[in-house]
Amino acid sequence: MTPTDDIQPAVSDARERLLAAALEQFSRRGYAASSVREICQSAAVTKPVLYYYFRSKEGLYLQLMEESYDQFETTLAELHSFSGTVRQRVIHFCQGVFDASIQQLPLVKLFYSIYYGAPQGAPAFDLERYYDRMLQVLSDLMQAGIERGELRPGNVADMVWATLACLSIAIEEQLCHCTPRIGRLAMCRMLELVFDGMALNPPSL
Amino acid sequence: MTPTDDIQPAVSDARERLLAAALEQFSRRGYAASSVREICQSAAVTKPVLYYYFRSKEGLYLQLMEESYDQFETTLAELHSFSGTVRQRVIHFCQGVFDASIQQLPLVKLFYSIYYGAPQGAPAFDLERYYDRMLQVLSDLMQAGIERGELRPGNVADMVWATLACLSIAIEEQLCHCTPRIGRLAMCRMLELVFDGMALNPPSL
Repeated sequence: MTPTDDIQPAVSDARERLLAAALEQFSRRGYAASSVREICQSAAVTKPVLYYYFRSKEGLYLQLMEESYDQFETTLAELHSFSGTVRQRVIHFCQGVFDASIQQLPLVKLFYSIYYGAPQGAPAFDLERYYDRMLQVLSDLMQAGIERGELRPGNVADMVWATLACLSIAIEEQLCHCTPRIGRLAMCRMLELVFDGMALNPPSL
Repeated sequence: MTPTDDIQPAVSDARERLLAAALEQFSRRGYAASSVREICQSAAVTKPVLYYYFRSKEGLYLQLMEESYDQFETTLAELHSFSGTVRQRVIHFCQGVFDASIQQLPLVKLFYSIYYGAPQGAPAFDLERYYDRMLQVLSDLMQAGIERGELRPGNVADMVWATLACLSIAIEEQLCHCTPRIGRLAMCRMLELVFDGMALNPPSL
């Protein structure tokens, strides 16, 4: 350990701490109410360090959003490699997105606050990308399910949205102001119900 | 028409205009960014009129929330009188809540911004009440569906949440920043899929 280690943290470490501090502040207090001063204080770096890596609060926010989206794409790619029936693959996909959301709850909270909240002057970032990608993945899977004779031929978009609805409400329950009333297992059971309704072979009674 | 009609609007009218102006401002700009001055300007009343009816911005907000909830209860009572199979009744219920949401979109937008948005200092109002009531209505209906032999015996909560998920995502699409991708009809088709999965008699192919 060199004497400078105490004074100057590794650069990459400072950068990561700034991203983590920004996420925590944006998520808890909102974008507008978070100041560069407080983010730096929380990350234990000086303002020039923030300006060096991100130029501004806007730059820090956009970098956080971009890296989060890249992380999401990585998660999707991992989930894509799973094999099985379409039912199993869709449920595995939803579980994976649910798990990733739980692991990144402050980030999901930030997305919802930006998407639904009052305007806060945050720079534009296309949050629809997340939904668009999930719709695409699920659409491909449902189409394959029909082609393989696993699902009844029908409106693919309806199947996709009914599935996404279960995933979406399960994630939203994790953001609720009370104790979440549905979790991972309940979501899977809801998805099983939806698949029973879409299956070519009806569920055995 | 008396000469005073031009100068002094009917009191009840001024009150209604204040509520409408407040909803518009809160919904578009957020609670914190809406000022008493602008609300009064938009409602074409003087500040003392606002203070007379609502005491403060907080009072105006709470009154808006309370009256909206009362309206919601009235809608639920109307929907409750519908008769038919449980499937028909649930779909009728979801259509009714969906229609009411479309008619009151700025209000729904305000709920979402308060619920998910960054803290804005708005006085506490229990928005969970809306969900709790819908959960209760749907739960009673599903229970009746099982008892009548219309639905397969199973986890009532799962059935309720799968149904509420379709309603919820359909309403959220109306709040999206793009063109809504699902509407009333698509929601009904999604609900039909869910009911196919819950039915005692599987759908005919």
